[in-house]
Amino acid sequence: MAESIELTENQKALMRMMTVFFVMERAHNLELAKIDLNLPQASALYLLKTAKEPMTPMKLARMMHKEPHTVSALVHRMEKYGLVTTKRDMQRKNWVRVSLTKKGEEAMKRWSTTTVVADTFSCLSKKELEALYEITRRLHNKNLQVLRQMRISPYAEPLFW
Amino acid sequence: MAESIELTENQKALMRMMTVFFVMERAHNLELAKIDLNLPQASALYLLKTAKEPMTPMKLARMMHKEPHTVSALVHRMEKYGLVTTKRDMQRKNWVRVSLTKKGEEAMKRWSTTTVVADTFSCLSKKELEALYEITRRLHNKNLQVLRQMRISPYAEPLFW
Repeated sequence: MAESIELTENQKALMRMMTVFFVMERAHNLELAKIDLNLPQASALYLLKTAKEPMTPMKLARMMHKEPHTVSALVHRMEKYGLVTTKRDMQRKNWVRVSLTKKGEEAMKRWSTTTVVADTFSCLSKKELEALYEITRRLHNKNLQVLRQMRISPYAEPLFW
Repeated sequence: MAESIELTENQKALMRMMTVFFVMERAHNLELAKIDLNLPQASALYLLKTAKEPMTPMKLARMMHKEPHTVSALVHRMEKYGLVTTKRDMQRKNWVRVSLTKKGEEAMKRWSTTTVVADTFSCLSKKELEALYEITRRLHNKNLQVLRQMRISPYAEPLFW
């Protein structure tokens, strides 16, 4: 442990973003556990709820920026809990269509009442919130570019803007 | 899918942060895959490298804001790959001490050469970077408070500031 590791200013900024996110993710997961959900489930429910087209596990994976096998396993567990149903697409036999169930809709409503972690944003001024909006918009676009250069084709359309 | 879900401004801000993070995490994981690492491994290596005291899986879990069983599994896999060693603590028999191996040190050095995702921060001006620093510092502290209120005791000491 003698020699320390030298990081660039950009690498330090990345580590800071990651750290903040891990704390928020942990806190939000604990908040969600009280209503029998976790963050991946809540994200999938939200995407299914707001989707304008039929959703497949592959599309969900792209939109969540997760590995396809991770999202397949997630969908499988969510189906077991009764939050979603899956059905083979009649037109395209190798497609599985994922839909919200009534229980999934209810879970989505419960999620929208969890405000503890979201309300930590109240510690920021209006000006800071605006700055954060612009900063995250730019970082989001820049990193989508990076993903494209890595030959991953993410949905071009931004998700939550 | 008829009725949409109403989110508060704070909830939308949280979703935005999550989305940006998922894109950055995915891009950084792809970057790390080229040097046979992933983000949890890189985080653990960094914490082990910079730790000022002996590390246990439990301490790592607290500092990474992850579930203890998640980090135990991570440490186990990293030991299999030869990145860390684990040894029972002689003073406290129920403690397992985790240390970096030479191979772990080398992986850490390789990680410090990955700059693609980190350098997306270059799209921000000096003023924006300063704003982001202050914003993330405040959000980090606020969310540590939330974790404490949820009776999780995170390390009070901030990690990467």
